[in-house]
Amino acid sequence: MSAPIQPAVVGATGYAGFELARLLLQHPRLRKPLLLGRDGEGSDTLDLSEVYPHLSGNGGCPIQRFSWERLQGVDVLFLSTPHEVSREWVPEAVERGLRVVDLSGAWRLKKPEHREVYGFKNGSARAHHIDDTAVYGIPELHGDSLPQAQVVANAGCYATSVILALAPWVRAGLVDLEHGVICDSKSGVSGAGKQPTAKTHFVEVADNLSAYSVFGHRHTGEMLEQLGLGASQLQFTPHLLPIPRGILSTIYVKLARPASSGELEQCLRGFYAAKPWVRVFGQARLPQIKFSLQTNYCDIGFAVSPDGERAVLVSCLDNLLKGAAGQAVQNMNGMYGWDEREGLQ
Amino acid sequence: MSAPIQPAVVGATGYAGFELARLLLQHPRLRKPLLLGRDGEGSDTLDLSEVYPHLSGNGGCPIQRFSWERLQGVDVLFLSTPHEVSREWVPEAVERGLRVVDLSGAWRLKKPEHREVYGFKNGSARAHHIDDTAVYGIPELHGDSLPQAQVVANAGCYATSVILALAPWVRAGLVDLEHGVICDSKSGVSGAGKQPTAKTHFVEVADNLSAYSVFGHRHTGEMLEQLGLGASQLQFTPHLLPIPRGILSTIYVKLARPASSGELEQCLRGFYAAKPWVRVFGQARLPQIKFSLQTNYCDIGFAVSPDGERAVLVSCLDNLLKGAAGQAVQNMNGMYGWDEREGLQ
Amino acid sequence: MSAPIQPAVVGATGYAGFELARLLLQHPRLRKPLLLGRDGEGSDTLDLSEVYPHLSGNGGCPIQRFSWERLQGVDVLFLSTPHEVSREWVPEAVERGLRVVDLSGAWRLKKPEHREVYGFKNGSARAHHIDDTAVYGIPELHGDSLPQAQVVANAGCYATSVILALAPWVRAGLVDLEHGVICDSKSGVSGAGKQPTAKTHFVEVADNLSAYSVFGHRHTGEMLEQLGLGASQLQFTPHLLPIPRGILSTIYVKLARPASSGELEQCLRGFYAAKPWVRVFGQARLPQIKFSLQTNYCDIGFAVSPDGERAVLVSCLDNLLKGAAGQAVQNMNGMYGWDEREGLQ
Amino acid sequence: MSAPIQPAVVGATGYAGFELARLLLQHPRLRKPLLLGRDGEGSDTLDLSEVYPHLSGNGGCPIQRFSWERLQGVDVLFLSTPHEVSREWVPEAVERGLRVVDLSGAWRLKKPEHREVYGFKNGSARAHHIDDTAVYGIPELHGDSLPQAQVVANAGCYATSVILALAPWVRAGLVDLEHGVICDSKSGVSGAGKQPTAKTHFVEVADNLSAYSVFGHRHTGEMLEQLGLGASQLQFTPHLLPIPRGILSTIYVKLARPASSGELEQCLRGFYAAKPWVRVFGQARLPQIKFSLQTNYCDIGFAVSPDGERAVLVSCLDNLLKGAAGQAVQNMNGMYGWDEREGLQ
Repeated sequence: MSAPIQPAVVGATGYAGFELARLLLQHPRLRKPLLLGRDGEGSDTLDLSEVYPHLSGNGGCPIQRFSWERLQGVDVLFLSTPHEVSREWVPEAVERGLRVVDLSGAWRLKKPEHREVYGFKNGSARAHHIDDTAVYGIPELHGDSLPQAQVVANAGCYATSVILALAPWVRAGLVDLEHGVICDSKSGVSGAGKQPTAKTHFVEVADNLSAYSVFGHRHTGEMLEQLGLGASQLQFTPHLLPIPRGILSTIYVKLARPASSGELEQCLRGFYAAKPWVRVFGQARLPQIKFSLQTNYCDIGFAVSPDGERAVLVSCLDNLLKGAAGQAVQNMNGMYGWDEREGLQ
Repeated sequence: MSAPIQPAVVGATGYAGFELARLLLQHPRLRKPLLLGRDGEGSDTLDLSEVYPHLSGNGGCPIQRFSWERLQGVDVLFLSTPHEVSREWVPEAVERGLRVVDLSGAWRLKKPEHREVYGFKNGSARAHHIDDTAVYGIPELHGDSLPQAQVVANAGCYATSVILALAPWVRAGLVDLEHGVICDSKSGVSGAGKQPTAKTHFVEVADNLSAYSVFGHRHTGEMLEQLGLGASQLQFTPHLLPIPRGILSTIYVKLARPASSGELEQCLRGFYAAKPWVRVFGQARLPQIKFSLQTNYCDIGFAVSPDGERAVLVSCLDNLLKGAAGQAVQNMNGMYGWDEREGLQ
Repeated sequence: MSAPIQPAVVGATGYAGFELARLLLQHPRLRKPLLLGRDGEGSDTLDLSEVYPHLSGNGGCPIQRFSWERLQGVDVLFLSTPHEVSREWVPEAVERGLRVVDLSGAWRLKKPEHREVYGFKNGSARAHHIDDTAVYGIPELHGDSLPQAQVVANAGCYATSVILALAPWVRAGLVDLEHGVICDSKSGVSGAGKQPTAKTHFVEVADNLSAYSVFGHRHTGEMLEQLGLGASQLQFTPHLLPIPRGILSTIYVKLARPASSGELEQCLRGFYAAKPWVRVFGQARLPQIKFSLQTNYCDIGFAVSPDGERAVLVSCLDNLLKGAAGQAVQNMNGMYGWDEREGLQ
Repeated sequence: MSAPIQPAVVGATGYAGFELARLLLQHPRLRKPLLLGRDGEGSDTLDLSEVYPHLSGNGGCPIQRFSWERLQGVDVLFLSTPHEVSREWVPEAVERGLRVVDLSGAWRLKKPEHREVYGFKNGSARAHHIDDTAVYGIPELHGDSLPQAQVVANAGCYATSVILALAPWVRAGLVDLEHGVICDSKSGVSGAGKQPTAKTHFVEVADNLSAYSVFGHRHTGEMLEQLGLGASQLQFTPHLLPIPRGILSTIYVKLARPASSGELEQCLRGFYAAKPWVRVFGQARLPQIKFSLQTNYCDIGFAVSPDGERAVLVSCLDNLLKGAAGQAVQNMNGMYGWDEREGLQ
C-alpha cells in the first residue's frame, strides 16, 4: 500500500465543507486533513468543533489561516469556496503542483456561453487551460478521466440529480429530445449555504414552498453539456423545500418510441450495474428524499404512462453528500485509483 | 334582507369539515350550523371543541348523530364525507328537497370513463340525473350556474390549483395543447385526511418529500374535463410536502405562438378582473405557499422563457380553504346570490 | 358612537408589526392605520404588500418615511421598534400629546435594578415620569388603569404566558413562594425577530431544540415585578422551538398547602371569569401550542401531584398575537373603553 | 481474537429496532444478525429493505418468522418488543441459555411499586429471579456488572438523559435532594413508536408542542431507582417536539451548598473522564439536540445562578441511539468485554 495522501480543505465551516472535513477525517487512506479558513477566517486557536459542536470529543480539528506556504506537503486540495475564489485560486494551486477538487461552479462548464451566467471575465491562458482540461466531477460518467485529472470540477447538486437520472435513457436514444425534457427539482435549505439571509430565515422557509430562478438557474448549463442537449431541449425549475437537506427531482420525458416498463428499468440497471453509489428502484416503488439522506447514494426510480409514450423519472440524493462532499470524496477515490466506496460507508 | 339560511355539515371532525364549520359559524347570512357526525360518530354530548380545542371559548358546537329527521328545517347540506358516502346520500338529500354542497369527488366528473377511477357502479336513474346536473364547484368558472344548482360538486384541491392557473391561457388559445401540459403539484399533509396511516406519520413525512400516484391520481379527470383536454394532453404528478397545509402547482406549457410576458399577464388579469378570490402576481414575483395560507385566495404567477416559446405557471392555495371549505362557502354564496366574499374575510 | 380613532404604526415590516397592521386594518373602530418605517425605511412608493404579499388584493398599505410631522392627526401611536428606539421616541411622542402603545421592553420595568439588563442610562426627568406612569400592558391585570393611560408598555411574550398562568394562584396564596417557582418556556422562532442571523437560519433551527439565556433573560424582571416576587423566587429558562410561532410555558410550583384539583381549577376560573382572552382548561386536557395559534387567547391548564403538594401549570399563546400585536390591540381597546374583543375575532 | 458472536433481533421493523439492525450489520465483532419478526410478522420473503428502502443496495436482510428453533446458534438476543412481550419471552430465552438485551421497560425496575405502572402481574419464580438479577443498562453506571449479566434491561430514553446528567452531582452530594429536582424533557416523535396514531399524525405534531403524562410517566421510576431518590424528590414532565428524533432535558436543582461553576464542571468531567459516550460541555456553551443526532453521545452542559445556589443541567441525546439502539450495542460491548466504542463510530 502506498504512502497515505495528505488532503487540505478550504472552507470547512460551510455546510458542504463541514461534511467534507467529517468524511476526510475518517477516510482510511488519508492523513488527517489540513483545514484552512477563507476570507481571513481561521487562526491557530479556532477549532472546527467550536463551529460544529457535533464534532466535540473527536480530538482537535484546528482551522488555520490560509496561506500557500501552509499547503506544502499537501497532495490534494479541496476548495469549498465561492466560485469567484475558486476561479482565482485553482490556477495558482495547479501551478504549485497540487491536485484540486473544486466544489464550486467555477470550472464545471466547457462552453463560454454557459459560463456567462457566472460573470467570469476573459480568463488568463492558464485559466483557459484549466477550463479545457478540468474533469467534470460525476464519477459514474467520467470515472475513466479521474486518474489523470489535475482539476476535478465537482458537479452541482441539482445537476447531479438530473444528469444521473437522464443519462442512461438519453444515451440509449430512448428520449424524444426534440419534445423537450422538464426537470422540476426540490431542494432542502442547506443548498442555499450557511450565510443567513432573508431567504433562509426559519420563519420564511417553514410551512412554505417556493419556486425560484425559473428559466435561469446556473446548474442548467451543466445539465445541457453533460447530456449533450441544446438550450431549448431541457427546462429546469428549482424549488426551496422546508427541510434541511435532500433533493428530489421529478423529470418528465416523452419517449422516442413506446417502451415497456421492463425495458426502461433494464436500461437503468445496465447503465449503473457496476456503480455502487447509484441505486435503481424498480417499478414498484419510487425513491423518497429520506431514503438517501446521510448517504452518498443517488436513488433513481420511474413510472411510465399506460400507453408507453411518456415517463417520469424521480431522482433523490443528499445535496451535501452525493450532491457535494460525498461526491468530492468519490472523485478523489477515482483520482487515486481507490475503490469508489472508500471512506463513504 | 331575506330570512337567514340554515346550514348543516356532515363530517365536521375532519380537517376540511372543521374549517367549514368554523367558517359557517361566523358567516353573517347564516343561522348557526347544525353539525352531524358520520359513521355513528356524534351524540348529544360530543362537542366539536372536544376534537378541536382551538374552538373552546366560542360557545358550544354539539355534534349530533346523523339522521334524516334531524335535517328538517335545513336549507343547505354540506357533506365532508368519503365519496362512497356522498354517492349514496346525495340522491336522498335531493329527494328531500335539500340543496347540497358535496366536498367529495362523488359528483365532479361528467364522463363515465373518468368516474371509473372511483369505482362507482352503474348508478340509479336519480344518480344519473345528479351526474348530469351537478354544477362543478369552481365559482370563477361556473358562477352563472350556481343560483340554479341543487347539487354543487366542490372541486378537488389539486384540481382547483391547476384549473384556475390554466383556464385563462387555454381558453385564449395561448397554449399548444398537442404538445402536452405538465402539472407538478406539491401538497401539505392535511390533504391526505385525518385518519392516521403509515403515510401521515410524522416521522415518515418530516424531512422528506415523495411523489405518488404518478399517471393515476383521481383529480386528473377533473382537470381534463374542465379544461377540455384529452388524456394525453395533461400529465399530473402530486407530491407530499412536510407541511400541514398548502398546495403549490408548477405548470409547464409550450405556447401556441411566442407571446410576451405582458400579453400573458394581461390575459390572466383580464380573466380574473372581477374575481375577488384569485390574485394574479406580476412578473416580478412568484406566489409562494405561505402567501395564501389561512385565506381563500388562489394566487397565480408565471415566468416566460427568453424566446417567448415556453412558460411556467405557479399557482398556490390553502388546500383546506380555496381547496375545500372556503370554496364550499364561496359556492354557497353563489347559490344564494350573495357576494362571493361573504363570510370569507 | 364617537369619531373613529386614527392609529399609526412604526415598524410594520417586522413580524409583530405586520400582525399589528393586519389587525388594525380590520378593526371596526379605527381609521385606516398610518404605517411608518423606521431607520430610514419607507418611502412614498413602498407598500406593505411588497414585504408581505400575503396582503395583496386588499388595497394599498403604503409605508411612509417616519417624521413627527406625519403624525399630525394621529391619536394613538404603536411602536414596534427596538427598545433603544422606543426609549428615545416615547417621551417625544408624549410631549406631542400622543397616546402610545409600545411593544418593546423600554417601559415595562418599574425597578431600576431590573432595567439594568437593557443597559438604559439614567434618563431625563420626562423619562422618569414615563417610567413611573406607564401602564404594564396585560389587560387582564391592569385593565382598570388603561382608560387613563398615556403610555402602555405592552407585556413581553414570555412574560405574558408566565404571568397569566401564575397570577391567580399566587394572589390567592396557593403557591409556596419561598420554595421557588420554575418556568420552563419554549418559543417559536418569530419571537427572535425578522433579522436573519445564524440563530434563525432554517438549517440551525430545524430538527433541533436549544435552551438559551439561562439565568439571564430580560423578561424575568417583568415576571418578578408583576407577581411581586424576589429574584430568588422565580427561575425562567427559554428554549427555541423549530416552529414559526407559539409559546408553551411549563411552570412548576410547590403548593403552600395541599390543594385539590377542583380548588385549583376553581381559582383559575374565578380569576378569569370575565376575561374573554384567557381560556382555562379543565383537568382532563392540557393546552397545546396549536390550540391558540392565530388567536388572541392565552390558554391555561394544570396538573396536580397525587399528594396535592405540587402542581404544574401549562400555558400557551401565539407570541405574535396575545404575546404582542393582539395584546396591543386589546390594550388599545381598554384605553378607549371598548369591548376587549373588538377587532380581535 | 475469539470467534465472532451471533446476534439476533426481534422487532427490527420498528424505529429503534431498525437502528439496531443497522448498527449490528456493521459491527466488526459480529456475524450478520438474524432478524426475526414479531406478532406473525416476517416470512422467508420479507426483507428489511422493503420496510426501510434506506437499506437498499447493502445486500439482503431477510426478516424471518420468529420461532425458538430459529434461535439455535444465537449468542445474544436483542428484543425490541412491547414490554408485555419481553416480560413473557425473556424467561424463556434465559432458560434456553441466551444472553439478552431487552430494549423494553419490562425488566428495568427493581421495586415492585415502580413496576405497577406497567401492570405486570405477580410473576413466576424465574421472573422474580430476572427482576433481581437483570442489569440496568446504562454502561456508564453499571459497566462493571455487564460482563456477568445474562439479561440487560436497556435504559429508557428519557431516563438515560436525566440519569446521566444528574448522577455525578447527586453522588457527590452537591444536590439538595429534599428541595426536589425538576426534570423538564422534550422528545422527538420517533420516541412514540412507529404505530400510526392520532398523536403521531403529521398535522397534529407539526407547528405544535404539548406536555403529556404529567406526574405519571413510566420512566420516572427508573430515574428514582438509579439516583436513589424518593418519589417526592424528582418530578418529570415529558413534551412532544415536532422533530423526528432527539431528546433535550432541562433539569433544575437547588445546590446543597453554594458551588462555583468550575467545581460543578470538574465534578462532571471527573465522573465521565473515562467514558467515551458522554461529552461534558463547558460553561461557555450548552448542548443542543442536533449536536448529538445520529451519534451515540449523551451531551451534558449546565449553568449556575449568580449566587451559586441553583443550577440548570441540559442534557441531549438521540433517543434512537444513546436512548435505545446505540446504548444496546454499548451494553453488548460491555457484556463481551469489548471496547465501548466498537461498532458505534
